[in-house]
Amino acid sequence: MEKLAQIYEGKAKKVYATDDDTLCIVDYKDDATAFNGEKKGTIVGKGVINNQMTNRLMAKMEAAGIPTHFVKELSERETLVKKVTIVPLEVIIRNISAGSFAKRYGVNEGIVFSAPTFEFSYKNDDLGDPLLNDEHALALGITNEAEIAQIRKYAYAVNDVLKAFWSSCGVTLVDFKLEFGKTTDGTIVLADEISPDTCRLWDTATGEKLDKDRFRRDMGGVEDAYSEIMRRLVEHDA
Amino acid sequence: MEKLAQIYEGKAKKVYATDDDTLCIVDYKDDATAFNGEKKGTIVGKGVINNQMTNRLMAKMEAAGIPTHFVKELSERETLVKKVTIVPLEVIIRNISAGSFAKRYGVNEGIVFSAPTFEFSYKNDDLGDPLLNDEHALALGITNEAEIAQIRKYAYAVNDVLKAFWSSCGVTLVDFKLEFGKTTDGTIVLADEISPDTCRLWDTATGEKLDKDRFRRDMGGVEDAYSEIMRRLVEHDA
Repeated sequence: MEKLAQIYEGKAKKVYATDDDTLCIVDYKDDATAFNGEKKGTIVGKGVINNQMTNRLMAKMEAAGIPTHFVKELSERETLVKKVTIVPLEVIIRNISAGSFAKRYGVNEGIVFSAPTFEFSYKNDDLGDPLLNDEHALALGITNEAEIAQIRKYAYAVNDVLKAFWSSCGVTLVDFKLEFGKTTDGTIVLADEISPDTCRLWDTATGEKLDKDRFRRDMGGVEDAYSEIMRRLVEHDA
Repeated sequence: MEKLAQIYEGKAKKVYATDDDTLCIVDYKDDATAFNGEKKGTIVGKGVINNQMTNRLMAKMEAAGIPTHFVKELSERETLVKKVTIVPLEVIIRNISAGSFAKRYGVNEGIVFSAPTFEFSYKNDDLGDPLLNDEHALALGITNEAEIAQIRKYAYAVNDVLKAFWSSCGVTLVDFKLEFGKTTDGTIVLADEISPDTCRLWDTATGEKLDKDRFRRDMGGVEDAYSEIMRRLVEHDA
């Protein structure tokens, strides 16, 4: 597999073409951003952790019947993935109130919901990734009802797998963001990453934050949190 | 029916108790506000128009099987209504892109949707009435699934009746906001008002705005627009 020209650079990853036009290479960076890119920084070693963590968690998703873009880990920071067109909807599942939810609705963090919530936001930096509901997504022509149903089903299944696994590591899964893509044959698959950049993870015993909120909120110990969460994953990953 | 103490004053209406504790009197003001109360003004004669228009339109809703809070028009500005606890969710149905939708998602006004969209916003001035989806409303304990299903069914039915009626008046129903309440026996009924304050109404032939956007956007001719829309309603109301 030959790594060809860079075709995209996001906030945390670069994507390269390969000599197979159904495959790409993702290269994870240490760059960290928050608040729609307003805050910028570096989390040393994050790219390595997020690459390896994502790949291990994607394997769990595949095992649970959730198709993903994962093909093969190539190096510490590089992974071969199926080439997809990203559906421009961020999918957020929340088990516990935190972050933008708590702020938007004026409630405390830490409220455990009786059922997880599912929400879309429209992936558009210029607009600040605004929240939208299913009917808005349809009206805007972003997706269709069949895709929404598929994405919703997969997202809840990811939550079930992820919540149970993190629980076995003594970690509470608060909320997370997923992105889905369509492969060259039109199949919807889980794409992007599953990492402390995209999940809120609280130590179940102490409540300590083990995710990007440490960076967002200038709490210190950012690298340690990423290392700790990776350590627990490796320890409990069968 | 005796009018007792004022129990509530909103931006456009006052509500009074009566000697029957299942009934209230609504008194429509000429006060106009926009942008969550940041802009304030007066639209002379608006209270009379909105009272009479709302009552005529509520009658059409009752005729179509949609229960409302309406009991009896008492005067130019006063109406006797069932006492309700307002469900703190604004219900917005959109047939055509405009206003906050166009701004939020970066699209032009005037895009006709293939199906109407339904959205909730959380009635909370301090939070700026944020958008929320069904699952958020459930997680926040604002309502339950049965109420949401009932409200959604009624809101679409209101759209069908309203769209057809305004069309017969040469007016295009772009979008509108509804509020629902629970009567003392727990029944969900349509409450609040249906007026140029709460609906976007465009002259079908010319595209001219005949609603509160003339006030919001300092377009002038505000009173004339309210009078014109009332004139058409009276002319076409069988």
